[in-house]
Amino acid sequence: MGNSFGSLYRFTIWGQSHAPAIGVTVEGLPAGFAPDMEKLTAFLARRAPGNGPFSTTRKEADTPEILSGLADGVTCGAPLTAVIQNTNTRSADYDELRRVPRPGHADYPAWVKYGNARDVAGGGQFSGRLTAPLCIAGGLALQLLEQEGITVRARIAAIGGETDSVKMTEAMQRAKDTGDSVGGVVECVCEGMPAGLGEPMFGGMENRIAQAVFGIPAVKGVEFGAGFAAAGMRGSENNDPYYYDENGRVRVRTNNAGGILGGITTGAPIVFRAAFKPTPSIGLEQDSVDLTTGKNVRLTVRGRHDPCIVPRAVPVVEAAAACALYDALLEGKAWS
Amino acid sequence: MGNSFGSLYRFTIWGQSHAPAIGVTVEGLPAGFAPDMEKLTAFLARRAPGNGPFSTTRKEADTPEILSGLADGVTCGAPLTAVIQNTNTRSADYDELRRVPRPGHADYPAWVKYGNARDVAGGGQFSGRLTAPLCIAGGLALQLLEQEGITVRARIAAIGGETDSVKMTEAMQRAKDTGDSVGGVVECVCEGMPAGLGEPMFGGMENRIAQAVFGIPAVKGVEFGAGFAAAGMRGSENNDPYYYDENGRVRVRTNNAGGILGGITTGAPIVFRAAFKPTPSIGLEQDSVDLTTGKNVRLTVRGRHDPCIVPRAVPVVEAAAACALYDALLEGKAWS
Amino acid sequence: MGNSFGSLYRFTIWGQSHAPAIGVTVEGLPAGFAPDMEKLTAFLARRAPGNGPFSTTRKEADTPEILSGLADGVTCGAPLTAVIQNTNTRSADYDELRRVPRPGHADYPAWVKYGNARDVAGGGQFSGRLTAPLCIAGGLALQLLEQEGITVRARIAAIGGETDSVKMTEAMQRAKDTGDSVGGVVECVCEGMPAGLGEPMFGGMENRIAQAVFGIPAVKGVEFGAGFAAAGMRGSENNDPYYYDENGRVRVRTNNAGGILGGITTGAPIVFRAAFKPTPSIGLEQDSVDLTTGKNVRLTVRGRHDPCIVPRAVPVVEAAAACALYDALLEGKAWS
Amino acid sequence: MGNSFGSLYRFTIWGQSHAPAIGVTVEGLPAGFAPDMEKLTAFLARRAPGNGPFSTTRKEADTPEILSGLADGVTCGAPLTAVIQNTNTRSADYDELRRVPRPGHADYPAWVKYGNARDVAGGGQFSGRLTAPLCIAGGLALQLLEQEGITVRARIAAIGGETDSVKMTEAMQRAKDTGDSVGGVVECVCEGMPAGLGEPMFGGMENRIAQAVFGIPAVKGVEFGAGFAAAGMRGSENNDPYYYDENGRVRVRTNNAGGILGGITTGAPIVFRAAFKPTPSIGLEQDSVDLTTGKNVRLTVRGRHDPCIVPRAVPVVEAAAACALYDALLEGKAWS
Repeated sequence: MGNSFGSLYRFTIWGQSHAPAIGVTVEGLPAGFAPDMEKLTAFLARRAPGNGPFSTTRKEADTPEILSGLADGVTCGAPLTAVIQNTNTRSADYDELRRVPRPGHADYPAWVKYGNARDVAGGGQFSGRLTAPLCIAGGLALQLLEQEGITVRARIAAIGGETDSVKMTEAMQRAKDTGDSVGGVVECVCEGMPAGLGEPMFGGMENRIAQAVFGIPAVKGVEFGAGFAAAGMRGSENNDPYYYDENGRVRVRTNNAGGILGGITTGAPIVFRAAFKPTPSIGLEQDSVDLTTGKNVRLTVRGRHDPCIVPRAVPVVEAAAACALYDALLEGKAWS
Repeated sequence: MGNSFGSLYRFTIWGQSHAPAIGVTVEGLPAGFAPDMEKLTAFLARRAPGNGPFSTTRKEADTPEILSGLADGVTCGAPLTAVIQNTNTRSADYDELRRVPRPGHADYPAWVKYGNARDVAGGGQFSGRLTAPLCIAGGLALQLLEQEGITVRARIAAIGGETDSVKMTEAMQRAKDTGDSVGGVVECVCEGMPAGLGEPMFGGMENRIAQAVFGIPAVKGVEFGAGFAAAGMRGSENNDPYYYDENGRVRVRTNNAGGILGGITTGAPIVFRAAFKPTPSIGLEQDSVDLTTGKNVRLTVRGRHDPCIVPRAVPVVEAAAACALYDALLEGKAWS
Repeated sequence: MGNSFGSLYRFTIWGQSHAPAIGVTVEGLPAGFAPDMEKLTAFLARRAPGNGPFSTTRKEADTPEILSGLADGVTCGAPLTAVIQNTNTRSADYDELRRVPRPGHADYPAWVKYGNARDVAGGGQFSGRLTAPLCIAGGLALQLLEQEGITVRARIAAIGGETDSVKMTEAMQRAKDTGDSVGGVVECVCEGMPAGLGEPMFGGMENRIAQAVFGIPAVKGVEFGAGFAAAGMRGSENNDPYYYDENGRVRVRTNNAGGILGGITTGAPIVFRAAFKPTPSIGLEQDSVDLTTGKNVRLTVRGRHDPCIVPRAVPVVEAAAACALYDALLEGKAWS
Repeated sequence: MGNSFGSLYRFTIWGQSHAPAIGVTVEGLPAGFAPDMEKLTAFLARRAPGNGPFSTTRKEADTPEILSGLADGVTCGAPLTAVIQNTNTRSADYDELRRVPRPGHADYPAWVKYGNARDVAGGGQFSGRLTAPLCIAGGLALQLLEQEGITVRARIAAIGGETDSVKMTEAMQRAKDTGDSVGGVVECVCEGMPAGLGEPMFGGMENRIAQAVFGIPAVKGVEFGAGFAAAGMRGSENNDPYYYDENGRVRVRTNNAGGILGGITTGAPIVFRAAFKPTPSIGLEQDSVDLTTGKNVRLTVRGRHDPCIVPRAVPVVEAAAACALYDALLEGKAWS
């Protein structure tokens, strides 16, 4: 099902932008784990709106409330449900949204799929706001991974085609000034994953991470290690030579494989990049259609929106990766 | 599980390069479907070795035998199992492979995961040969999709960084001449998929196709529509404007979304690209380790191998996509 | 995972008896469905405590609050989450429960599985209270089934070995008077299910219904049609002869199969029975062990408990069956 | 999907009675396991036809051929596929079967579900012959469980309502003499399962075992421990009191729970019973319908059939239970 991920560390994300609440239900947390709620809140704050000059000013605390799964602050073996109340009220002025799909948003396919029953308010279930519960599931997984010496760190690799941080800021400013938006690339590095995790073929680490990361709105590409660049390399360049390090451990001299061969972890850092398209919400007038009149129309999306969601997407990428990693880690233990 | 894919159109691929056979078991075929076996054999022939000057000369008919699922040549509602006998016998000279992992292959992580029980002969379960049963599952899905007016066509977009066909051939020849290998990019276009298929978040068409395509050995990246290039675009460029065509159907002027928004099909062609790393089997000497002695060693992989598997990968990409598409198509009917 | 059920109509039940809340998240509801909340509340009231003289007096409104999945009272395609607040506060006197497992309850295996992290308050996640969210998922399914002309009705078939209603009441009264408890049998009849639903072998209607119904605490047996009695019958008695009715429809003269052959619905009513063991909470002193001292002890479970939960279990059985049926109904549409 | 079972120890059974072959594909076997093929063959022989005077005389070796998953006789981490060739050829005289559904068989619902595409030869995919591949998956699981000190033993508890072995034989003889059939009850005891396995609610051991056992054709009821009898007991009788044995281990004085509380193993033997209806194939004339003419007809099923399949079902019940147990055992390790 669409809103669920994982097999042993399994969760379902639910909510819409303007429903009473959004949240997540997580199965598979080991009993006896005391989540560090301050750390989780700090992690969530990294994706919260209002961080920096290129973020929407919508103010939301995004403090999760834990409704189940804990007893005296410790996981008890029951599913954990965390809820974030939606404080924004459902406003009445969605009439145009109902009629005219915004280019680049899910409005049109959602209309085909769900008809007029779809929730258009604030993007409904397609809102980027749904990445908050993903960060809860991922934030918990990150803490559990950390206990096993595994870290997951993402960073902005490019914005608007620029890889230099000054130029990235300029690109965002330019987009903001012109009522436009820019996309970017987030790179994520996972260190400490033991070798031998993941399954061949469809249960490989690449498949799992890709399935998780494509669940983040606006992601249009995922590549591992050298990725698309590997397609232009020769085997002698791309193959990662093995050697024994001073501690007698097998290591690779390069990591073009991004830590994954045959779907299975090699013990080298897992490295992947996710391409984010530019935010579809822009201030410029666009071509669209009126689904009620059957006429072509011009649309101007109102309201304030991030000219670039890439900075806020960084912890979301970490969260998605962490969920895939922790699920694979649990699975690996079944046969160990 | 690793070797299984899909929820309603579900299959498990099994076999190793030098096991008695390889094959696939498919659940979810509608009853009353008469597979065109000639067409299926022709489809399989496109990925078979021995096609063209850059393919291995290992001769294998790859004619599938259907052991179950048909009655009088028509699907009867039972799972279909297709088998391809392995004619190559298990040879005795795998001693070095057992000790020294080939860079770029799954040898090392497989050793960590399965220990000495792993099947090293011909790459075992990690052999590219396992794409033949994938082509059976996919070839059947392609025929079923075709009945609904849906086509899936892949082509080589680049080899060794070259996009011109003459230069691609040169790149492969150069790799062959030097005992090296090259990778490439395969682009796939799926036309005729109705709008409204796929689920939000983790059940989106991107997630499903990526999960299938990363199941093909050597794939290191998957991107949809403008993909990584979208990350460098502005929203006003990347958004696909809607309009009504002469038949009153909603269309897009561009297709940077690759036919998918919010995980759901828009009705525009689904377009994606897969990056294939260069074949890890090369004739050149490489650095590796001897797992039995704990010493660094130099390794020369013997035998003949494709300098480039990209041409043979084209139908495999179609097969993987077709499986994901047909599964989503069945799923969509559940709520229609 | 334990708390989740279904493939296309899929839900996860969460919460513990004394957690802040209990609830359920449901995926797979068709968009455009307007749940009748009064009807749902009335359905939930049938299982609520305080109904009749043999029920606990714990007072809880059990009014579900819908946090997501609806827009203007209509399902919008997003997962539906319903929450019931727990008003009972966590009391401090669970010390004995922590040390001494109650016979017949899940206390001991939960201690082995989750250790001291398990939630002992009010039975934690094993509380019968978790059947309330099951009734929400099932109550919604019942409304959807009704739209397709399918009804699910359960009734008490026996209590304490008695099948006469006066004697059943006497059995419960006797149990109450003596601080003891009694079990019983609930029979469920599902009418209107089309023939041809369910899958062979493990996806059969019996397998699915059994998987759902064994999810209800205290169920120790499930049988379909003639069930265990069929084991004592001859084939000539047990086989249900076919005939054409006046409308030219195939019917069966008897229904010993309980409407299911080969796992697939025959179109006759689906009939099954669930055996409920007597409530393990009794007022009488029992033998147990002290897990902290390693000594045998005598235990008297304090508090008021139902001498018989069978009457309250009736709607729960309907709910479990409805979930399995609706899931199979959706699945059947995929290939139709 | 119907023919698949399990999550970590997962298999798909395929084939039809008169297809070229039947078989099973198993994922989740630990690498490095050397199946005892003689033991497996002996296990399969227990369910093979031709054993004793009440079994069909159809002669089939039922020797499985392993096509994949082994290297040098040891599991290598790849899925294992085992095949049994069907030696019986498809005969031409199925015309009546196509038109007239046999009461008690899946003929009629299969016709509704699959239409004329269904495989009627020898019962198609609904044939009891499909329990042979289940015995392969189960036989392997039994060997793996044995390595962990876990045994699974089933026995005939009743035939035709008789529990005395002499009377059972008489009941079968009487059925044979009169062209009729009898059913029976198989009881299964699993010893050595550690406490703490299984999940609450829908992932409980009862749910899993029931899902597996209802996959055996002709099973119409499953009960655990005291089962339906518990429904007539008082709590004070049914609760299993705990005590410490001489080795300081927690034990139960009775085992009315059948080793399962709250879905989780208690460490006591898992005990369950499965009710088998009488074989629907009988020699007596029965009422049925002609699906092509729309007329009521009288049907006499030709050919020789077992008057009682219960003796042959004993190892099949062990196989089904073993698969559910081993799957739960693997799952339990994920969080340990």
